[in-house]
Amino acid sequence: MLIIYDQLIERILSEDVPYGDITTEAMGISHIKGIMEFRARFDCVLGGVAEACAVLKKAGAEAEVLFQSGSRVEAGTLFMTAKGTAGELHAGWKAAQNIMEYASGIATRTREVVDSAKKGNPAVVVACTRKSLPGAKTLCMNAVEAGGAVPHRLGLSETFLLFENHTVFFKSEAEAYAALEKACAKLPEKKPAVEADSLDAALRAARAGAGNIQFDKVKPETLKEWIKLIKAEYPGIIIAAAGGVNASNAEEYARTGIDVAVTSSVYWGKPADIEVVMRPL
Amino acid sequence: MLIIYDQLIERILSEDVPYGDITTEAMGISHIKGIMEFRARFDCVLGGVAEACAVLKKAGAEAEVLFQSGSRVEAGTLFMTAKGTAGELHAGWKAAQNIMEYASGIATRTREVVDSAKKGNPAVVVACTRKSLPGAKTLCMNAVEAGGAVPHRLGLSETFLLFENHTVFFKSEAEAYAALEKACAKLPEKKPAVEADSLDAALRAARAGAGNIQFDKVKPETLKEWIKLIKAEYPGIIIAAAGGVNASNAEEYARTGIDVAVTSSVYWGKPADIEVVMRPL
Amino acid sequence: MLIIYDQLIERILSEDVPYGDITTEAMGISHIKGIMEFRARFDCVLGGVAEACAVLKKAGAEAEVLFQSGSRVEAGTLFMTAKGTAGELHAGWKAAQNIMEYASGIATRTREVVDSAKKGNPAVVVACTRKSLPGAKTLCMNAVEAGGAVPHRLGLSETFLLFENHTVFFKSEAEAYAALEKACAKLPEKKPAVEADSLDAALRAARAGAGNIQFDKVKPETLKEWIKLIKAEYPGIIIAAAGGVNASNAEEYARTGIDVAVTSSVYWGKPADIEVVMRPL
Amino acid sequence: MLIIYDQLIERILSEDVPYGDITTEAMGISHIKGIMEFRARFDCVLGGVAEACAVLKKAGAEAEVLFQSGSRVEAGTLFMTAKGTAGELHAGWKAAQNIMEYASGIATRTREVVDSAKKGNPAVVVACTRKSLPGAKTLCMNAVEAGGAVPHRLGLSETFLLFENHTVFFKSEAEAYAALEKACAKLPEKKPAVEADSLDAALRAARAGAGNIQFDKVKPETLKEWIKLIKAEYPGIIIAAAGGVNASNAEEYARTGIDVAVTSSVYWGKPADIEVVMRPL
Amino acid sequence: MLIIYDQLIERILSEDVPYGDITTEAMGISHIKGIMEFRARFDCVLGGVAEACAVLKKAGAEAEVLFQSGSRVEAGTLFMTAKGTAGELHAGWKAAQNIMEYASGIATRTREVVDSAKKGNPAVVVACTRKSLPGAKTLCMNAVEAGGAVPHRLGLSETFLLFENHTVFFKSEAEAYAALEKACAKLPEKKPAVEADSLDAALRAARAGAGNIQFDKVKPETLKEWIKLIKAEYPGIIIAAAGGVNASNAEEYARTGIDVAVTSSVYWGKPADIEVVMRPL
Amino acid sequence: MLIIYDQLIERILSEDVPYGDITTEAMGISHIKGIMEFRARFDCVLGGVAEACAVLKKAGAEAEVLFQSGSRVEAGTLFMTAKGTAGELHAGWKAAQNIMEYASGIATRTREVVDSAKKGNPAVVVACTRKSLPGAKTLCMNAVEAGGAVPHRLGLSETFLLFENHTVFFKSEAEAYAALEKACAKLPEKKPAVEADSLDAALRAARAGAGNIQFDKVKPETLKEWIKLIKAEYPGIIIAAAGGVNASNAEEYARTGIDVAVTSSVYWGKPADIEVVMRPL
Repeated sequence: MLIIYDQLIERILSEDVPYGDITTEAMGISHIKGIMEFRARFDCVLGGVAEACAVLKKAGAEAEVLFQSGSRVEAGTLFMTAKGTAGELHAGWKAAQNIMEYASGIATRTREVVDSAKKGNPAVVVACTRKSLPGAKTLCMNAVEAGGAVPHRLGLSETFLLFENHTVFFKSEAEAYAALEKACAKLPEKKPAVEADSLDAALRAARAGAGNIQFDKVKPETLKEWIKLIKAEYPGIIIAAAGGVNASNAEEYARTGIDVAVTSSVYWGKPADIEVVMRPL
Repeated sequence: MLIIYDQLIERILSEDVPYGDITTEAMGISHIKGIMEFRARFDCVLGGVAEACAVLKKAGAEAEVLFQSGSRVEAGTLFMTAKGTAGELHAGWKAAQNIMEYASGIATRTREVVDSAKKGNPAVVVACTRKSLPGAKTLCMNAVEAGGAVPHRLGLSETFLLFENHTVFFKSEAEAYAALEKACAKLPEKKPAVEADSLDAALRAARAGAGNIQFDKVKPETLKEWIKLIKAEYPGIIIAAAGGVNASNAEEYARTGIDVAVTSSVYWGKPADIEVVMRPL
Repeated sequence: MLIIYDQLIERILSEDVPYGDITTEAMGISHIKGIMEFRARFDCVLGGVAEACAVLKKAGAEAEVLFQSGSRVEAGTLFMTAKGTAGELHAGWKAAQNIMEYASGIATRTREVVDSAKKGNPAVVVACTRKSLPGAKTLCMNAVEAGGAVPHRLGLSETFLLFENHTVFFKSEAEAYAALEKACAKLPEKKPAVEADSLDAALRAARAGAGNIQFDKVKPETLKEWIKLIKAEYPGIIIAAAGGVNASNAEEYARTGIDVAVTSSVYWGKPADIEVVMRPL
Repeated sequence: MLIIYDQLIERILSEDVPYGDITTEAMGISHIKGIMEFRARFDCVLGGVAEACAVLKKAGAEAEVLFQSGSRVEAGTLFMTAKGTAGELHAGWKAAQNIMEYASGIATRTREVVDSAKKGNPAVVVACTRKSLPGAKTLCMNAVEAGGAVPHRLGLSETFLLFENHTVFFKSEAEAYAALEKACAKLPEKKPAVEADSLDAALRAARAGAGNIQFDKVKPETLKEWIKLIKAEYPGIIIAAAGGVNASNAEEYARTGIDVAVTSSVYWGKPADIEVVMRPL
Repeated sequence: MLIIYDQLIERILSEDVPYGDITTEAMGISHIKGIMEFRARFDCVLGGVAEACAVLKKAGAEAEVLFQSGSRVEAGTLFMTAKGTAGELHAGWKAAQNIMEYASGIATRTREVVDSAKKGNPAVVVACTRKSLPGAKTLCMNAVEAGGAVPHRLGLSETFLLFENHTVFFKSEAEAYAALEKACAKLPEKKPAVEADSLDAALRAARAGAGNIQFDKVKPETLKEWIKLIKAEYPGIIIAAAGGVNASNAEEYARTGIDVAVTSSVYWGKPADIEVVMRPL
Repeated sequence: MLIIYDQLIERILSEDVPYGDITTEAMGISHIKGIMEFRARFDCVLGGVAEACAVLKKAGAEAEVLFQSGSRVEAGTLFMTAKGTAGELHAGWKAAQNIMEYASGIATRTREVVDSAKKGNPAVVVACTRKSLPGAKTLCMNAVEAGGAVPHRLGLSETFLLFENHTVFFKSEAEAYAALEKACAKLPEKKPAVEADSLDAALRAARAGAGNIQFDKVKPETLKEWIKLIKAEYPGIIIAAAGGVNASNAEEYARTGIDVAVTSSVYWGKPADIEVVMRPL
């Protein structure tokens, strides 16, 4: 269930068309009715389709969606058409295309990580970090879900995740773990997460009440060993691997026994290439 | 000259911290004074520094900038520090880091294209398209400038650029060129641009008044020939190459005699890796 | 750590002073320097102090805070002063007072629930629902924290909480619990919560993977029995009581063995009465 | 006539559902069509109905209203239904319910004050102050009107109302009254109001041109005496009673001869309890 | 007392400088320190000075104000200077100048109407209508006050003003006056205004409770007669003249005995001409 | 092609009707169905029609447009009707009327300048400056286009235009021209403009690469001479005249050989007078 807030759509479209389309207007074609077709140039998982539709509607056109966000489509697939005047189609064209290219890129890469991870262990969940494109959290979170992953954490106000940048503020490790214990007790409805880079750190965190250990940049073979030891003692604990997880190693990570593969890699890379062709009606 | 609008900063920061930082608060360290250091993990051209500063200030911290956006820094360089309470530093951390990682990525890739192009011809200008991250035009345009390029066009309301998606609305080529001629006459203060994929199309556009021919996906060797012929007849005309231009081929394109290399490639790829370390003061 | 977004402050102040203060202006006193003093009329826990300060600053005045949000102050306590011209003081007066009266009311009632609950069991956590004043989530969440409680859930995008209004969409109970099991597996980093009104429902939810059982409108004596049985089987599970929990019964609920007392009662009731007196300087 | 600004609706809904509904999505029921029914749990005067409708529509559902804001409904009355997918219904549920619960609470309490006052004197008008929920002036003003009262003053830019916090800035009473006289002359289109706490103050204000005397915290029996004396001399003047006026004493105040009963009490108290039930269609 | 909301300033400045100043940047002078001087080219009453200052500050410059809004300055007067880099000065230049030119134009024309009206009758008040520049109510209301007038009505939610476009909805005049009587009784804190174009209409409105009769497009000599008759019967009533009132006839209107001269003329006409000169420091 | 952003419409309408229409409501006519007719009182070119329609729709009414923006209509022409309840019609009335009066005023004056200029030379283009009403750039740019002109420059981020306020920052003329030459080379896709007040300055700018010379306040007869000399040497260069160009002298300027007449005069003057009449249906 996705609510497309008008404010987002206006912000994105008005960045591209603050005052009208000089070219279409000067060419004298604004009033001619036409159709615009969107096709994937390569195999991809679609993202941003609902948002692009909202952009086109805001520009005055009407869109028909043949494949929604989350659909895996083959190269050449026609997945959306829009009808309207040349003025309306041109006004919405690039903003709609740009949203879908970025979002489909993210959705496609997400699906690759998910597929790879599931090959290693079908129960593993892929969670995407909050290092999404600055100012585009809504688009990115929707694309992540289209790709089959979940948001790792939406931001600081939502989940408890302890980093070394927190523990440096304590005079001793003991003090830090005591604080962690208190913090866990204060937040019974959350599943407190702690970033760890050693077995010892993980066990101490678990002892203090962490419900989720997030290992950062630990190699799969090491991780496998550690997880066995941790889960023996704390069977209900969640283990997440972060730091360098991507489509090329997600399967290997998944085989280590982790519950969650945390990745930022899906945000990076080329947008999906979408062909946009217009013709008069 | 860069104005950092508060609305942008509030939008980005509040996406990450809508209601307070659960972790720092629950750990009881919010009030402890500390320092946060930002270092490049790899050689890069910095971007987003002023915006990140504004984010940190909004979070209550004070930042000191050692290297501004546009500076080329080596791996390990400390380029910014921030002082404040642990609460303030943690609130601004990720938003500031995320902005600078994306922007520095864009600035670095832009510089690479610029350097490559200048090797081919020092007079060539690199112009980056409006296919920037959706909703982040300000950050992207600043990053592009930090990298040494210029924005190609900010949007539809600013420049005249004719695509095939315009000309399809005419019944004949003749009609389209007649319309182009009129359009050019109506916009004497603009330099009308026309996308072309053949020598003939370019010459006809030039005849109609185009001041800028943008070749899409034409190979360098072909381009070189065509440019010679076009410039012989229209010495003042600007020739731009677009479609697939990137750091690996910008030099070759620059040698063809183009005036402008148009690229979207700078927006795509891994953000620059920035290390952020805190410690108490 | 609390970021006061300017947008919130402008929205609240401009509701009260969209175009200037007719009275102060017409009386010809806008330019006279003065001081404004804020005192609690009754014992209370302060809330909204930082937000009120930001309002006064926006109006042009300078505020000095003697007691911050979260402080318990006695009737008559001077807790804040502001200096500025009569024009500045009057512009900010009511908006600042109104924020603090509502927020201190919420903070005070929260503290009462917390104190009552802690008497029953010092380890119990009080969580306040999202039925906060519409459009004032930031003010309310800050006030809740000032009172010593935590937000229950900020909204639908943050936590998993299953209601009967979800399960009615399944054809059978079995289907619903199967779906719940899948949902829990999909969200390993969350602690899925399920609202229950019977022991059986709670046990089935626990079996399906719920990490948090929220009993709605179950009497304390019954709750006590059930919790014993549930925790025997699921020792790590969190039990929350919701529906009618308030300062008068929180102690009793706390004695049942619950981990969390969930309440909306803190949002309802009279704002704290704050006296505001001005005089020339 | 009530304009529901989209910006308000987006602000309220997006506070609750910034990025999607985790629970409904994870349970796999988002696509199932259903109906949601809103019933009053107790007798009340409805408020916020149009705003709640707009919220539901924004969430994608369609609402049918059986009783509009301002209707007095009995406990159990079905007053609104909404149809849509489970995803749409759940997205809008709490925001819609929360708005109507607060607004109906205000409307119901307003009607009680109005009914009480009218019993004392059918010509008395009830005016509600601007001490409404911070950030929710639109909702509150609409609820006040649904309850049969009028807004006292929307803010500082609209009406002239002199408080002691203004007069303290004068060196003498004489100076203050001279300023008042000038102010009244400057604002002929307004009906200048002056807060008074004594007969003498009232008479002097009337003499200076006040069209409205607002007595603060004066007992009904005293008020009655004073009003007789004031109206004898200034028959057209408006007398308002403020400070502690509520449903329990409005009748008594109304019998004193006041024209207006000014109250903030309607904003305080329990929201109206509204039952929301869903079922599949 | 004037609050300059940041949102207004950002909106105006970002319209002019959404992404940076191409010219100053390309010329390579952005970093050079300079001073910018603002001088009136003709005698005028200044307006918009505080708003322009805020714009300059937002652009990074520091402004020093020698004459505030409302000051009458002679041609050539230096009334404001700003210091900053050439980049900062150029960024704020036109937006600041544009605001002050429009606002000073309005303030100057307002002062002319006020001066003319006061010549006819020093007690007359000039009230400016809500037909201000669309989207610029704040700037316009401030300019009106700088010119010595008051806002007539800020909008529909603030005052009662009956037009013929209301009364056409009644089946008979009698019905309309009965409704007016009820309306006046419902709004005791307002001074209800009625637009009239005949003596009879005015008297009937007064009888129904109107506190303010606004004559539309009635000639001064007729008005004089009517006012005498109306005031004889309703001595406390306010009489306003609207429709075609301007600096050339305000004196004549003022001599008729009106209390208020209502005008829109101040918004129309040439902005005040302000010279802006920069030089390096 | 014109996108009417909702944010603009809400901003303008809510300035006039923040909380409801007191008058229509108190008169008890809000629910009566009616029609509202818009007629030009004088011959004019319509502007703002689409924006006014959007305002009326936002207020709940339905508008039918008989003549769109850009149409030249005679005095008395009915060009738009709106249907709805009296409440809806009154809510939208003044905001819709005000937008169209200002915009039609601008469109009409623009058309006058265009007609005058075309008489002098049918090929001349009229460009309107960015000295439009502060905060109303969208309305103004649309009105300018309705009048047959083009925007001169939307702002600083779009075009290169060199003023004396730039060149003062150089130590010598030579330095300034060297910088200009570099700037032109950096912006090949733009047509760099330079303001000049002498033949010599113009020639030097042209030599440095300017594609557009904008003469400020140069008399037509002088201009004619200069243009002949400049165009002899730089046949492709664009010559614009600015500073005091208006409907009374545009023809004369057009005869000088300029390509562009730049004017701000269209923004100044009386709004077009539009009669608005309602009646019940």
